[in-house]
Amino acid sequence: MTNTISIPWDARPEASKEVMWRYSKNPIVGRYDIPGSNSIFNSAVVPFGEGYAGVFRSDNTAVQMNIYAGFSKDGINWEINHKPIEMKAGNTDMIESDYKYDPRVVFIEDRYWVTWCNGYHGPTIGIAYTFDFIDFYQCENAFLPFNRNGVLFPEKINGRYAMLSRPSDNGHTPFGDIYISYSPDMKYWGEHRCVMKVADFTDSAWQCTKIGAGSAPILTDEGWLMFYHGVINTCRGFRYSMGAAILDKENPSKVRYRTKPYLLAPAELYEMTGDVPNVIFPCAALTDGERVSVYYGAADTVIGLAFGYLNEILDFTKNNTL
Amino acid sequence: MTNTISIPWDARPEASKEVMWRYSKNPIVGRYDIPGSNSIFNSAVVPFGEGYAGVFRSDNTAVQMNIYAGFSKDGINWEINHKPIEMKAGNTDMIESDYKYDPRVVFIEDRYWVTWCNGYHGPTIGIAYTFDFIDFYQCENAFLPFNRNGVLFPEKINGRYAMLSRPSDNGHTPFGDIYISYSPDMKYWGEHRCVMKVADFTDSAWQCTKIGAGSAPILTDEGWLMFYHGVINTCRGFRYSMGAAILDKENPSKVRYRTKPYLLAPAELYEMTGDVPNVIFPCAALTDGERVSVYYGAADTVIGLAFGYLNEILDFTKNNTL
Amino acid sequence: MTNTISIPWDARPEASKEVMWRYSKNPIVGRYDIPGSNSIFNSAVVPFGEGYAGVFRSDNTAVQMNIYAGFSKDGINWEINHKPIEMKAGNTDMIESDYKYDPRVVFIEDRYWVTWCNGYHGPTIGIAYTFDFIDFYQCENAFLPFNRNGVLFPEKINGRYAMLSRPSDNGHTPFGDIYISYSPDMKYWGEHRCVMKVADFTDSAWQCTKIGAGSAPILTDEGWLMFYHGVINTCRGFRYSMGAAILDKENPSKVRYRTKPYLLAPAELYEMTGDVPNVIFPCAALTDGERVSVYYGAADTVIGLAFGYLNEILDFTKNNTL
Amino acid sequence: MTNTISIPWDARPEASKEVMWRYSKNPIVGRYDIPGSNSIFNSAVVPFGEGYAGVFRSDNTAVQMNIYAGFSKDGINWEINHKPIEMKAGNTDMIESDYKYDPRVVFIEDRYWVTWCNGYHGPTIGIAYTFDFIDFYQCENAFLPFNRNGVLFPEKINGRYAMLSRPSDNGHTPFGDIYISYSPDMKYWGEHRCVMKVADFTDSAWQCTKIGAGSAPILTDEGWLMFYHGVINTCRGFRYSMGAAILDKENPSKVRYRTKPYLLAPAELYEMTGDVPNVIFPCAALTDGERVSVYYGAADTVIGLAFGYLNEILDFTKNNTL
Amino acid sequence: MTNTISIPWDARPEASKEVMWRYSKNPIVGRYDIPGSNSIFNSAVVPFGEGYAGVFRSDNTAVQMNIYAGFSKDGINWEINHKPIEMKAGNTDMIESDYKYDPRVVFIEDRYWVTWCNGYHGPTIGIAYTFDFIDFYQCENAFLPFNRNGVLFPEKINGRYAMLSRPSDNGHTPFGDIYISYSPDMKYWGEHRCVMKVADFTDSAWQCTKIGAGSAPILTDEGWLMFYHGVINTCRGFRYSMGAAILDKENPSKVRYRTKPYLLAPAELYEMTGDVPNVIFPCAALTDGERVSVYYGAADTVIGLAFGYLNEILDFTKNNTL
Amino acid sequence: MTNTISIPWDARPEASKEVMWRYSKNPIVGRYDIPGSNSIFNSAVVPFGEGYAGVFRSDNTAVQMNIYAGFSKDGINWEINHKPIEMKAGNTDMIESDYKYDPRVVFIEDRYWVTWCNGYHGPTIGIAYTFDFIDFYQCENAFLPFNRNGVLFPEKINGRYAMLSRPSDNGHTPFGDIYISYSPDMKYWGEHRCVMKVADFTDSAWQCTKIGAGSAPILTDEGWLMFYHGVINTCRGFRYSMGAAILDKENPSKVRYRTKPYLLAPAELYEMTGDVPNVIFPCAALTDGERVSVYYGAADTVIGLAFGYLNEILDFTKNNTL
Repeated sequence: MTNTISIPWDARPEASKEVMWRYSKNPIVGRYDIPGSNSIFNSAVVPFGEGYAGVFRSDNTAVQMNIYAGFSKDGINWEINHKPIEMKAGNTDMIESDYKYDPRVVFIEDRYWVTWCNGYHGPTIGIAYTFDFIDFYQCENAFLPFNRNGVLFPEKINGRYAMLSRPSDNGHTPFGDIYISYSPDMKYWGEHRCVMKVADFTDSAWQCTKIGAGSAPILTDEGWLMFYHGVINTCRGFRYSMGAAILDKENPSKVRYRTKPYLLAPAELYEMTGDVPNVIFPCAALTDGERVSVYYGAADTVIGLAFGYLNEILDFTKNNTL
Repeated sequence: MTNTISIPWDARPEASKEVMWRYSKNPIVGRYDIPGSNSIFNSAVVPFGEGYAGVFRSDNTAVQMNIYAGFSKDGINWEINHKPIEMKAGNTDMIESDYKYDPRVVFIEDRYWVTWCNGYHGPTIGIAYTFDFIDFYQCENAFLPFNRNGVLFPEKINGRYAMLSRPSDNGHTPFGDIYISYSPDMKYWGEHRCVMKVADFTDSAWQCTKIGAGSAPILTDEGWLMFYHGVINTCRGFRYSMGAAILDKENPSKVRYRTKPYLLAPAELYEMTGDVPNVIFPCAALTDGERVSVYYGAADTVIGLAFGYLNEILDFTKNNTL
Repeated sequence: MTNTISIPWDARPEASKEVMWRYSKNPIVGRYDIPGSNSIFNSAVVPFGEGYAGVFRSDNTAVQMNIYAGFSKDGINWEINHKPIEMKAGNTDMIESDYKYDPRVVFIEDRYWVTWCNGYHGPTIGIAYTFDFIDFYQCENAFLPFNRNGVLFPEKINGRYAMLSRPSDNGHTPFGDIYISYSPDMKYWGEHRCVMKVADFTDSAWQCTKIGAGSAPILTDEGWLMFYHGVINTCRGFRYSMGAAILDKENPSKVRYRTKPYLLAPAELYEMTGDVPNVIFPCAALTDGERVSVYYGAADTVIGLAFGYLNEILDFTKNNTL
Repeated sequence: MTNTISIPWDARPEASKEVMWRYSKNPIVGRYDIPGSNSIFNSAVVPFGEGYAGVFRSDNTAVQMNIYAGFSKDGINWEINHKPIEMKAGNTDMIESDYKYDPRVVFIEDRYWVTWCNGYHGPTIGIAYTFDFIDFYQCENAFLPFNRNGVLFPEKINGRYAMLSRPSDNGHTPFGDIYISYSPDMKYWGEHRCVMKVADFTDSAWQCTKIGAGSAPILTDEGWLMFYHGVINTCRGFRYSMGAAILDKENPSKVRYRTKPYLLAPAELYEMTGDVPNVIFPCAALTDGERVSVYYGAADTVIGLAFGYLNEILDFTKNNTL
Repeated sequence: MTNTISIPWDARPEASKEVMWRYSKNPIVGRYDIPGSNSIFNSAVVPFGEGYAGVFRSDNTAVQMNIYAGFSKDGINWEINHKPIEMKAGNTDMIESDYKYDPRVVFIEDRYWVTWCNGYHGPTIGIAYTFDFIDFYQCENAFLPFNRNGVLFPEKINGRYAMLSRPSDNGHTPFGDIYISYSPDMKYWGEHRCVMKVADFTDSAWQCTKIGAGSAPILTDEGWLMFYHGVINTCRGFRYSMGAAILDKENPSKVRYRTKPYLLAPAELYEMTGDVPNVIFPCAALTDGERVSVYYGAADTVIGLAFGYLNEILDFTKNNTL
Repeated sequence: MTNTISIPWDARPEASKEVMWRYSKNPIVGRYDIPGSNSIFNSAVVPFGEGYAGVFRSDNTAVQMNIYAGFSKDGINWEINHKPIEMKAGNTDMIESDYKYDPRVVFIEDRYWVTWCNGYHGPTIGIAYTFDFIDFYQCENAFLPFNRNGVLFPEKINGRYAMLSRPSDNGHTPFGDIYISYSPDMKYWGEHRCVMKVADFTDSAWQCTKIGAGSAPILTDEGWLMFYHGVINTCRGFRYSMGAAILDKENPSKVRYRTKPYLLAPAELYEMTGDVPNVIFPCAALTDGERVSVYYGAADTVIGLAFGYLNEILDFTKNNTL
């Protein structure tokens, strides 16, 4: 994931002692930045060519959920297509897709793989690949319904593709843990293992109702670093915050460390007001080996950026593990 | 509904390409504009004499819900009575009324008819008439409990009064479609027909949980234009947006067109914060035959105005029908 | 309602001190008495010609709910048609009817009126008339959805038809009170008044969750005698029992007396086992002026009969009023 | 599935016109037939050697759910092991199994495959194989949680194993449809397709809440015959009945016919009383090519048998299709 | 608790290997054994004079819940008063009591103490004492609402009265553990400690939803033996079974042993049908030092007796502890 | 409670006619004012030495709830300890405490008593005392779970300690009334009486779902003045507002007056956005005999101050009583 181009970055504010801090010009993508859009949020970004490419969730004013390709030189200023991605058939006949939301993107070997929440008799994990972010090829859904937050590892583990996901139900699911599954071919999936469960209310209440994988894992000396979201059910509904976990390099179903405190929780006005207030939902992370930029959906309405130093994040996760 | 006096109006902002846009000085009525009030919202306005009259919903600081008469020369600056409307007996003995909320007003033949959500062993549709917005005469409730959002047509259809409404239950009803009913005499109601149902989640999610009639229908060449609210159930509760429907002129139980996208959804701070955030709830529309002004409750707290050109709204509804 | 033919009857068992007792050969109609039926229950009977006619609810083995005509000489042994009633258009075009259940029958002036729970975008009250129980003419639904247990009075009250009903919602409604509505023409309904509400748990728990009208009211010196059902919500679901109310003769929205104890509650094996255990659901009552026979659905599966002396029932209701 | 030994059988009762009828000596296995058991039900049977072998669900008096092997010469009188099956590792390391229930068994090529509801952070589909019903080898769970009612086809379809299942959640799931998935190796699963959804309430209410595969499909000239359960949610909880479906021979994700009426619904005392009253839950079917015997759990307490002629069942399913 | 009079007893059936077995003539008290009663169940018995006295829960036909005194020579044949107990003021002014149900009785020092579920703005624990089962003196409620199943120890523990109870809510509580509290004077209560929690579903599902103390504890060499009820939530509602626990003699907040299997679960027709099917609810136990007789409510309708040998019950509890 | 030091104060804004108004520089304590905190709110303050001491609720970034001591000279600018209070054993062995939140403080005789919501198998009322806000001694929990909002009176009533509380359940309780209990020794509690119940929706909807004691009562000529919170359940969750009650001086279980209108409801941005929007939650009140300062949690995130004149508040409460 390391590349020579510069990742988006803002120095830590002077007064701040926080491990991660927000971009001062958040949100970087506004809710109306696609004509006819209601909101643009929960989106994924990867290095591409001289700059960056991304897959963006945008709900239109009919509140139909779809994903759009976009390009940027600096990872901050984006040109997002005005038409949603039209899929071609990948490793099977075309699969139904009532809706698409919450994409993630990862590069493996020779191509970019996109996963998202795909509407097939309820939410499950859709998969597609692209070489150029122009032509996309849709493959078999990974799982039976109901599932959300499917996140691929950026390389094969012991020769098989590996995906994190959160088994779910068909509504505003009030439970959810993170599992891992493997596939020899991106078509058939198996070897399902439980990776991380919600925390006890008394230990870490921000992640006591449900959790879900966020960014594609980043390989570090300590293991796979992954930003994830955790949810607490308040008397005004769900509140989504962001933490980090470090999974074992050889066997990523094993959690080595996991933040007991959150790294980022809704506190800015663009996070506390919007279509779904009090949501921070990470979907991608960039690193140059030293620094990390996290893209997160804010209030299910816009996109924000948060920054931190890789070492500090790893240290914090180790020193504040659940 | 066309009249020679000027309706409230604000030119479309230069950068805007939207069919409808907000009044730049929203909210036009503040939450405390009646002494002892907690909020003033979801209110109805009609041309009256040289200007306008209105019936306003205001909850007092005991959060008791009631309706108040008000007058305005320009439809923007209002003098609202400090005491709620006291009803006299209309076509029957006085009906119990535990509370009154969400009024609509319409002029038919020789008088103004007010409908509202009337507390009679739960919510149902109350009816009253007035000639002068001073004396109000309460009639029989239209229906058995439980019902909300009763909206009269501004003229008789085939010799009978016609009312849209939304059958409901006695709580925060998680379902709701729009029906039409007829009456020969404003006392007995029958010939109940289903008009519009909620949309599929995948087609138009902003109106997939419940819908309800908003403004009194406006007769146009295309049929009856009605602004209505649609609701989606998020993990933080209901979100109310506004769309438009065109009902058949002869048989208004038949929907000719209906906006798949919303026309207005909560996005301004006065719509996203307040007693019930993320609510846009239209209750009245004025037109001079060319332009349209819609009054809507914002966040169950204040009143906003939105504008558009009649032809553009009709075109948009036809071209973006569900 | 008095007639010269003998009503079904079984003497009070010697040991019994109860006001009402069961027919010793219950159930009188078995669940499979119509070919292809799953259950026959909640059905209504009236004197007809030399004997009796009835309208029967039967669910078939697809568990589709429909109503069937039947005839009997003695009110106990029934010949029920094997095909459900096919309606012709009555006072309007044909109304949709997704399903029909829980019929009641009453004779007014020159014809028999049937009411039932009619599936029109959810349950509401269907109305039809017949002169001969061969040809049935379906009229306008009385109300908007959602409603159940519509029961007509057997004569006009002050020149208008009168109907009891229970406003409801679209599921296993956990609330429900009895209302009365009037109509000049069996087409338009109004003047809705609340008649009876559920009892307090501490006063009469068997009727604390919901209540609904059962048999067509019988005019007595004390007023209109009506058998109704009451429901308590146990940790194993609803339990339905039967009580009686006496409504004012002139103004039947006024309850004069109402049994605090139930008259009949599930206790026999055919009432405690079946498709919906622990249900006693009265739908019709016959009287010869001295004695009363009540038809009730048992366990949503079969039909039972219960007997009592009119005077004793009236006395009991007066002396044990809520 | 045809074999020369005689399947369990009881002639159709003289008076009966039903397509399927119960064994006169039901239940064939009692709740206490294993020492220390609370109930024995929802169990699967296949031809084995000179007679039959089976895998039985039994809950012990701690209400721990487990599966037991058993043997029978005639399919009616069973000797069931007093100890639950102890698994050895199959195609992977041992999988956790908090509980095991509702087994199915099928013979493919050279061995017997057992599937069941396996407790792994909630219910999912466990898989094991055996050659002799003595040694069992547990394989990878087929799916992520949450899933129930995994039923294998008795032969490969286009070279891949095929399994029906019902995606679910972690409680008394109030929804559920039947899906099919494929695997090249009994380890990785994919190509998930929706097969059958619940029926509309108005069409076939007994199967309007959820449905799940029951017996292993039987290959017939018409396609794959499968007995399945359907559920209706009554005001006293779920009621389970049995129907049949015929799936396309080449592409079993396509339903050719499916019974609109049920074939068997709870009506006998041993089906209407027990730990969970009003449950008929088929888990296996035997055929000699002419006749069919279905094993079903009754009231989550005991095991019953039902019989029918294959041709009559196929005809009934075709002639009464949903 | 040992006395010289003979306790109710029936020899173990020959075929039985169970630790506890039912009285062959159950139920010993029928639902109508008090005139005007709907049900008699969940009742407590103690040795008294030459025989036994008891306090009985009976719901009348208005389904009002109350408690009645009764007397018996043999503990099996009972004469129960036809009028409910009328309380006199005990250690305070008279306390409101909207309803009384599920009594327990215990003898301490010089008098009999009765506890029950008392309706005071919801359920809490009522306390009264009597010397003769004729005059009863009501004391302060032990706790704030909401609480159920208050059971006193038959002697003081370290000089203070001790009571087991189950904190609860105001409906069909889907949770519940057993706590102990102490009082110096039967008026003020404190030192609340958690004693026993529900079991994990996978360990002992019959007691995984809620548990509550049943009989007054019996002092044995092993500690305090207490029969309690456990509840599992099925898709048809709650099912109540009976287990036993042995609490530490010196510090009864410490559980020494507790049955993983149940001792008795609903299986007889009088336990599986009735007002609330599938309920076994122990409220009292007698012992002569060798044998034990347990009184339990069956199906919230009648009273049953179960028997066992004290040593066998203790051994079983120790050998099958959770 | 009167003291000579000056209480925090801001003059009534000129335009305001309200009985109580906000401090112009609210919030006085920010969410991050303790290092590592997520929020600081719902906190209690008392006069102490030359200034003030307080006990503050702060949730850290693991969203663990705990209480912290703090000191201030003017009641506005606070120095709050960075470490939570560590308790020593008070009148018993140390009690478990999974979490601590929503503290109140009161001075009685010779020491300060702190009460809070203590996590002991669910929420109940924890009690501790301190002489110096440095050493705190934890005593027995007052009640069994589940309870919240325990508020002590600042002096003994008839020789016994008195505490208001709100019996509760183990989640986002949708009900709740205020009770009073007494104790001779801060260890054993009894004589539980209901004080105030929620209001009818039609009378005062802001307090129709639940209510809870807020500040420690202030003794006035009219009786005990207490600020409390009331909750309404909107379609976006709970909304908390503040009212006042005056309890009888001699018998504080008797309510003399109680505000039908609220005194303060969420309307400022810091009250309408935050972790739990639309919450005003009073926990303490100071008075100099003439003026009153109320400390309240805002949006479960920060602390605000509100002011009023004692006489005006008393008059308003009397003149606007429910």
